[in-house]
Amino acid sequence: MAIPDENIHPTATGNAAKVVAEHQAKQDLVFYSGWFCPFNQRVWISLEEKGIPYQYKEVNPYKKEKHFLDINPKGLVPAIEYQGKALYESLVLCEFLEEAYPNYEPLLPVDPFERAHVRLWIDHTSKTIIPSWHRILQAQSVEQQDAARQELYEAQRKLAQQVKGPYFTGKEFSLVDVANAPWVAREYILAEHRGYDRAQVGDGWSEYAERLATRESVIKTTNDKDKLQVIYDRYLRDEAQSEVAKALRAGRPLP
Amino acid sequence: MAIPDENIHPTATGNAAKVVAEHQAKQDLVFYSGWFCPFNQRVWISLEEKGIPYQYKEVNPYKKEKHFLDINPKGLVPAIEYQGKALYESLVLCEFLEEAYPNYEPLLPVDPFERAHVRLWIDHTSKTIIPSWHRILQAQSVEQQDAARQELYEAQRKLAQQVKGPYFTGKEFSLVDVANAPWVAREYILAEHRGYDRAQVGDGWSEYAERLATRESVIKTTNDKDKLQVIYDRYLRDEAQSEVAKALRAGRPLP
Ligand SMILES: N[C@@H](CCC(=O)N[C@@H](CS)C(=O)NCC(=O)O)C(=O)O
Ligand SMILES: N[C@@H](CCC(=O)N[C@@H](CS)C(=O)NCC(=O)O)C(=O)O
Repeated sequence: MAIPDENIHPTATGNAAKVVAEHQAKQDLVFYSGWFCPFNQRVWISLEEKGIPYQYKEVNPYKKEKHFLDINPKGLVPAIEYQGKALYESLVLCEFLEEAYPNYEPLLPVDPFERAHVRLWIDHTSKTIIPSWHRILQAQSVEQQDAARQELYEAQRKLAQQVKGPYFTGKEFSLVDVANAPWVAREYILAEHRGYDRAQVGDGWSEYAERLATRESVIKTTNDKDKLQVIYDRYLRDEAQSEVAKALRAGRPLP
Repeated sequence: MAIPDENIHPTATGNAAKVVAEHQAKQDLVFYSGWFCPFNQRVWISLEEKGIPYQYKEVNPYKKEKHFLDINPKGLVPAIEYQGKALYESLVLCEFLEEAYPNYEPLLPVDPFERAHVRLWIDHTSKTIIPSWHRILQAQSVEQQDAARQELYEAQRKLAQQVKGPYFTGKEFSLVDVANAPWVAREYILAEHRGYDRAQVGDGWSEYAERLATRESVIKTTNDKDKLQVIYDRYLRDEAQSEVAKALRAGRPLP
């Protein structure tokens, strides 16, 4: 059986297509990207925020092509090559960009305690917000959807209560904002199909979410909605065969 | 119904008790520790490896006492107070100690790429090794135990293949070693009760595991086996009511 996820639109569209066109020249850092992927968008946002020179290469991770498995044996976007050496995992890559490019715009505070506080809430994002987000997306029964929606509200509320405003740490955009922005920018899908309502989170989540979704780096790395919808339709019917979809279905940690 | 996890032995024993006795004086850094907990032992190993002055305070996290929930709202050990400010999550704490104590023995390499490589394999540890470890521990049927054991072997084998030797990054002990050592030091439980055999992992796991288990900081933070066994007996019968046990049973991300 052909894996239908393979048949995704092959290239970035909309705003994202313009950014792709501007990043074709050879650079020290090659960004292996899947235009549609929220994990991927984290790295993309970081690169744009920091102003790091990078070469964009589109990858369809569902094809599991040899050249890409050599870069990431897990076969997932995002991945990078830096001076010929490969790395992957969105959050590891975000930390790497901070350390490999110390003279570019920082996305972590300077103080060790503040940095740990940022990492604590990224951990919260990974363990509670992202799994509930994907759980509600794939949930088929109304009961499951309701339960997942309440979980998502609660997880987002806990984060909202920590937001100093306008961004997580205050004035500066940080990796907590980066880690959440791609899912916030896709909340309209949950609103249209799963009864999700930003306002129900409370504690300033609506305002925070709006700020993330309208941040320039987020808008610049956003694709045409109709192209993205085709992919999310498969999740909404719980037909997706991605590693994330399968892990969630099996009650296993997301990859 | 009383939560029986509450009735754990109240204090550290064996080697660990000596270390506790040596760390009673007031310090900038207070370590809120549960003597039995492998996540907790990560931080304890880091503190000992780095030689950071710390004050040890025993916490029974199952009691969810108000004073401790004020420090960690999740009610889990390990946690710390640093100059009066609270932090938690074992891996966040390990990174924090690196940054807050830059003049103490480092547990991360200097080069940004090498640091990212360490973080990648800590991520692998969190997503695959630790969940399979707890899955086999709680698995009741032989089929489930067999499946979980194969998963654990595979996850450990992938890590083993990356070990430069003697430790993960080579000569220096690093946070990958720290992240794995507490579970390696408890492998005898899986060997006795779940047919786990270190040698079956292959690719040098036995040698690597032996090196971790006999590292001074690991031995120093180890407790009497009989006291630990009482706690693990509850897991082996799948009766434990800890957050980890419940999450695993429900197919949810570990806390
Ligand atoms: N934990 C990874 C997750 C990356 C991920 O799941 N990427 C998806 C696209 S959104 C992928 O490459 N999927 C290919 C597949 O599932 O086969 C990260 O944070 O980078
Ligand atoms: N993700 C946490 C996990 C810590 C954890 O689960 N600690 C356990 C003891 S091993 C605990 O405090 N359990 C109390 C409970 O489950 O109520 C970390 O890495 O620090």
